[in-house]
Amino acid sequence: MSAQKTPFDLQHFLSTRTETVNRALEQFLPPEKTRPATIHKAMRYSIFAGGKRMRPALCLAAAQACGGSEKDALPLACAVECIHTYSLVHDDLPAMDNDDFRRGKPTNHKVFGEGIAVLAGDALLTHAFEIIAQSKSGPRYPREKMVLELAKASGSLQLIAGQVADLEAEGKKISEAELKFIHERKTSALLCCSVRLGGMSANCTPAQLAALTDFGYHVGLAFQVIDDILDVTQTSEQLGKTAGKDAAVQKATYPAIVGLEKSRQIAAKLTDKAFAALKAFKGRAAALEALAQYLLQRDK
Amino acid sequence: MSAQKTPFDLQHFLSTRTETVNRALEQFLPPEKTRPATIHKAMRYSIFAGGKRMRPALCLAAAQACGGSEKDALPLACAVECIHTYSLVHDDLPAMDNDDFRRGKPTNHKVFGEGIAVLAGDALLTHAFEIIAQSKSGPRYPREKMVLELAKASGSLQLIAGQVADLEAEGKKISEAELKFIHERKTSALLCCSVRLGGMSANCTPAQLAALTDFGYHVGLAFQVIDDILDVTQTSEQLGKTAGKDAAVQKATYPAIVGLEKSRQIAAKLTDKAFAALKAFKGRAAALEALAQYLLQRDK
Repeated sequence: MSAQKTPFDLQHFLSTRTETVNRALEQFLPPEKTRPATIHKAMRYSIFAGGKRMRPALCLAAAQACGGSEKDALPLACAVECIHTYSLVHDDLPAMDNDDFRRGKPTNHKVFGEGIAVLAGDALLTHAFEIIAQSKSGPRYPREKMVLELAKASGSLQLIAGQVADLEAEGKKISEAELKFIHERKTSALLCCSVRLGGMSANCTPAQLAALTDFGYHVGLAFQVIDDILDVTQTSEQLGKTAGKDAAVQKATYPAIVGLEKSRQIAAKLTDKAFAALKAFKGRAAALEALAQYLLQRDK
Repeated sequence: MSAQKTPFDLQHFLSTRTETVNRALEQFLPPEKTRPATIHKAMRYSIFAGGKRMRPALCLAAAQACGGSEKDALPLACAVECIHTYSLVHDDLPAMDNDDFRRGKPTNHKVFGEGIAVLAGDALLTHAFEIIAQSKSGPRYPREKMVLELAKASGSLQLIAGQVADLEAEGKKISEAELKFIHERKTSALLCCSVRLGGMSANCTPAQLAALTDFGYHVGLAFQVIDDILDVTQTSEQLGKTAGKDAAVQKATYPAIVGLEKSRQIAAKLTDKAFAALKAFKGRAAALEALAQYLLQRDK
């Protein structure tokens, strides 16, 4: 009888980690009544608005893959989630994407007003650095290196660059290279940072860090291409949200620029590269692999 | 013949330090053409919009008072200026103070649009942490301590709290205690942080750090009370800006809440406390003293 690989229970992993992360965020954020209460209510409203905690999960899974403890990775996971949430709050503002709802709930500025929404985003961004400055540091990666990692991934050359390029692409015909530029920055940068910080908290080797970088980068890009494809091929019913929305608002997407067939080839290639990066972990990356499957082998 | 104290040449100090800080900011910020150029143009527009660099000057002067080098304090001075500038860019937005001009120049959102102004503020805030993560650390104050210092001073309990309380006080009658709450956070927090970071870069003693905290706190508060008084007592011609503006927009001010006479007493008391804090430096705080005189003993 050959040894059988136990299938990884992703649902269990996701639900337990979401709980852990939520509990930690509950601790890291100032209590709701802290004066002035409005800002702390607004910060908490968006942090606890039902996010799937994919970035924290990736961060914790990366720490695990490198033989580290999830406890050490937890502050980093929360810092990344603060950055992600701030970027959504600002992204939803009337001056940007002008969204009234996110995950079925009114967006921050619809509840608290635009001024407070800007400030709540600012506060979450600032708080990410307060959290990370107090995280555990390892011999290879002192805390300031992790602060720098987060600042660079969130800064004007990465996350914010993606946001700006996206704003500027509105209503314009852009090239495949330009679309890739946006996705690399809007999505891959922070995903990459999530797994890299997880690895750093586990004092990973330079080779492991390179593998995590490779993994995060390709998962991020593949995720976006697949998102574009599903918007075209699936019905609203299948997606659970309005299908065909990208085309309706003339958003630059892979299918629109290179066609559906080539988009599928690109997605497959990126997905392969993401999984290939995990070989470096010699079977210890079950959680990362399951997360990648969940993000990339989906039909909604 | 008794030894005569050479008067401190503040004009020379301010002009040389402004130049040093501007040169450093020029290096720290990504070049204007860095893709996407819009965001880097917008960041630079507000950073180089003619700010007086009072916070950087205070930071450098504090380092000097503690026997440190200005070179070591320079990145910290620039990080604080990035925070100060981001807060002005967001503060000027239509959803907040809705200002079209600052120092005679159109505000960021008037030039680049609201979306980019929000993102330029975000980018400057993020960049402050990128700069500080790469500053020199001393034995008493490792870099993460300085990151934490900046994050706390800029966060939802300090700078942002002041902004929120200010927004919420609009058109309302508030108490003296509430006005103090706003000023402590909107002004003192970052001034305090500027001198504390300067001291930390010089590896100051705990006693020196306490004196700098005391100094920064009182300079910040005194500055605000004096600002309120001048708005009432001086003409627009004397101020070089519209006098009586506070009363016109029903802004909560010290004269409005406690009367002019008591405001003057409060200002005098706070100013005394600021100068008293400098005694700890036994004559080595000439620059800090001159800066405080400049900020507090003014008629415009």
